[in-house]
Amino acid sequence: MEKKLKEIISEIHPVNKTLITTAFERINRLTKPVGSLGRLEEVAAKLFAIYNGDMPDSLKKVVYVFASDHGITEEGVSAYPRDVTYQMVFNFLRGGAAINVFAKAVGAKVYVVDVGVDYKFEKHSSLIIKKIKHGTMNFLKSSAMNIEDALKSIFAGFDVASEAVKKGFNLLAPGDMGIGNTTSSSAILKAITGYDTEKLVGYGTGIDEKTFNLKIKAVDTALSIHKPDKKDALDILHKVGGFEIGAICGFILGAAFHKKPVVIDGFISAAGFSLAWLFNKNVLDYAIFSHCSKERGHKLFFEYIKQKPLFDLDLRLGEGTGAVLSFTTIEAALKMFNDMATFEEANVSEKRL
Amino acid sequence: MEKKLKEIISEIHPVNKTLITTAFERINRLTKPVGSLGRLEEVAAKLFAIYNGDMPDSLKKVVYVFASDHGITEEGVSAYPRDVTYQMVFNFLRGGAAINVFAKAVGAKVYVVDVGVDYKFEKHSSLIIKKIKHGTMNFLKSSAMNIEDALKSIFAGFDVASEAVKKGFNLLAPGDMGIGNTTSSSAILKAITGYDTEKLVGYGTGIDEKTFNLKIKAVDTALSIHKPDKKDALDILHKVGGFEIGAICGFILGAAFHKKPVVIDGFISAAGFSLAWLFNKNVLDYAIFSHCSKERGHKLFFEYIKQKPLFDLDLRLGEGTGAVLSFTTIEAALKMFNDMATFEEANVSEKRL
Repeated sequence: MEKKLKEIISEIHPVNKTLITTAFERINRLTKPVGSLGRLEEVAAKLFAIYNGDMPDSLKKVVYVFASDHGITEEGVSAYPRDVTYQMVFNFLRGGAAINVFAKAVGAKVYVVDVGVDYKFEKHSSLIIKKIKHGTMNFLKSSAMNIEDALKSIFAGFDVASEAVKKGFNLLAPGDMGIGNTTSSSAILKAITGYDTEKLVGYGTGIDEKTFNLKIKAVDTALSIHKPDKKDALDILHKVGGFEIGAICGFILGAAFHKKPVVIDGFISAAGFSLAWLFNKNVLDYAIFSHCSKERGHKLFFEYIKQKPLFDLDLRLGEGTGAVLSFTTIEAALKMFNDMATFEEANVSEKRL
Repeated sequence: MEKKLKEIISEIHPVNKTLITTAFERINRLTKPVGSLGRLEEVAAKLFAIYNGDMPDSLKKVVYVFASDHGITEEGVSAYPRDVTYQMVFNFLRGGAAINVFAKAVGAKVYVVDVGVDYKFEKHSSLIIKKIKHGTMNFLKSSAMNIEDALKSIFAGFDVASEAVKKGFNLLAPGDMGIGNTTSSSAILKAITGYDTEKLVGYGTGIDEKTFNLKIKAVDTALSIHKPDKKDALDILHKVGGFEIGAICGFILGAAFHKKPVVIDGFISAAGFSLAWLFNKNVLDYAIFSHCSKERGHKLFFEYIKQKPLFDLDLRLGEGTGAVLSFTTIEAALKMFNDMATFEEANVSEKRL
């Protein structure tokens, strides 16, 4: 099964960088001072390169919320009980969660993907069931999952991305739901970056000081027990990861494989991205980082991979909410590129200096 | 005529602050950790207070681009020729400018208001003609305008805001177009804040070093000639202002007068806001600051009035583009408040700690 992973990874290619230059040749002819639309110009050029010079007229936007439970919750690292994971899945399916109302506001479709929730769901038109197990193991007692299940989680995400592309979506975002998943994400980012655990671990859904210290200890203990190889994404994922994080990693690999832009949300998505990036650094060419979360490790993640998110609205919810909020900015960048008049077309005089 | 201004100013009241608390009582019951939607929660509570506890179902969004010419352009302070002001008005009316494509992307209406463009326009359904003169005077040679014209510009903006409210718009933004207007805005902000001119003046549409120094000198000279009273908005406006800046000030006063939220764009809108704020500090209760512009003085403006914009995308175009880009975030905040399920409604367990 690792053969399939190797095949995927070997087929993720960088974008044609000369298209960035081509894009700016047009952007600089549009009726505005050169560079005056800042980050939007950068996004437009990136999209143009990702779409290989064939800019779509409009964006068909989708977010997939990957949900799973975490064995580490039995250590008491979260402010909310484990049941909240499956309860929130129902909330997503009924349209009552933040991701639903934001997606509606920006015209995006929401799907929920069960990759490991500790609950048996009935069929639902917005639910994709790719359950691997009823949650991971407690990674203070064993690996969070075996290698085979880690691969399954990656393929689940990859297959969802492939399905999205087949359905005609051309702007993809992964989201997350899983009580306990900031602990797992902190452990993943600790394994990769080696930064101080106190700086990577945050307050998650809003834990107290005692739980915060417990969380730091859980991450440090896990790392000292498992000693994951910082260069080996699969090793890290199976030892301290989560099914939804593996799926997010696979989803990002899938977007890059299919040459589609993928919008990265908060801290959990950053952990998933980091794993995808370890597999193949070319995923950077397809990623648009929407926001910097209030979860403190997220800032360090950006330092580590040398990227700058579009905005910072002090969000710390996950679900893909920040990614979806950035969809309109990305769409505005596309419309700027496609629909603005050039100086010639509009008979506007050029710069005199 | 100053009587009318006094009447307007005396009818701008603070919002009922207890409604902020009422709003958070609901926001904190929604299915998300308390505080996890950061700035959006703050925006939702602000909207609730502005709408006096009667949140609308949806937002009817509009941007008015106030356009005018500036006498100071004869000093060579801008990178673009003066004709670009009227040429861009045509571009707005044909839908080819950034503000048009962004407004379309977020579902907002665009109107252009001619308050002082040096060109005679024919009628057009998207153009509101409230021309005061064919541009201001060069404020190195005389006041930019007389007191009467300064008042006219304020009333032009006020009347446009009143008309917008009458038309049913409930989220308003002013935008600007006027070659030379960063110089005038820098002079206004210098007069009010007293900050170093070198820190307030920026590169506008993209001037070179020589022009940059000329611009600093123009601001300093104007201030030493006119010595505007830092507490007197009308004195500042008529001495070193612009018609579109006066109109933006009046528009903001109008929004606050009619108790409607007004979204503030970049550096020029900040200058207009500062004047409105000098007239009556209660305008702060109705203002949502969309973004921090790359125009350097904008950051100092935020320091001075102790406010934090929603985002920073390195924009420096004006027209209302940043304001319009933030409309979706503001709409998402409203939808969060109106449409998200509470813990009770969704049967989601509450925090255990």
